[in-house]
Amino acid sequence: MATSTAQSTPNKTTQDQLRAYVERIERLEEEKKVLSQDVTGIYQEAKSNGYDVKAMRRIIQIRRLDPQVAAELDELVDLYKHALGMV
Amino acid sequence: MATSTAQSTPNKTTQDQLRAYVERIERLEEEKKVLSQDVTGIYQEAKSNGYDVKAMRRIIQIRRLDPQVAAELDELVDLYKHALGMV
Repeated sequence: MATSTAQSTPNKTTQDQLRAYVERIERLEEEKKVLSQDVTGIYQEAKSNGYDVKAMRRIIQIRRLDPQVAAELDELVDLYKHALGMV
Repeated sequence: MATSTAQSTPNKTTQDQLRAYVERIERLEEEKKVLSQDVTGIYQEAKSNGYDVKAMRRIIQIRRLDPQVAAELDELVDLYKHALGMV
């Protein structure tokens, strides 16, 4: 539990504190899950309107990067493609 | 873009639609990130109060499972520990 003292004799306070932490985390994780489901729903909607989900995921990955970093990544991927005989 | 017609001649509408999808997803991903940071903050707070983060993560993982599934998992883990000479 919370402290070395609490480890040997967990009391009501540390139990309540632990429970509060765990339940707060679980609520946030639940909210994250709902958001993830919303994201999945948007991808499905986009797909049903003819957009390619893999390409959209790639776009979102690229937009997340600094443009300089994205350009360097492109160069490295090209380099690796050549190294692996993929082009 | 959205349709085979749109692929060759992407128009303003499909561009706007694609942009709207991407931006909606990015907003949701941003909200998820904030929630993840909140979760990290709670773990840090718990740690500073003497709780063990790994044990808390294990607890949250277990509570997420159906009790029957959690019990079966415990049994399997014990079996694997024996098989691998870990006990």
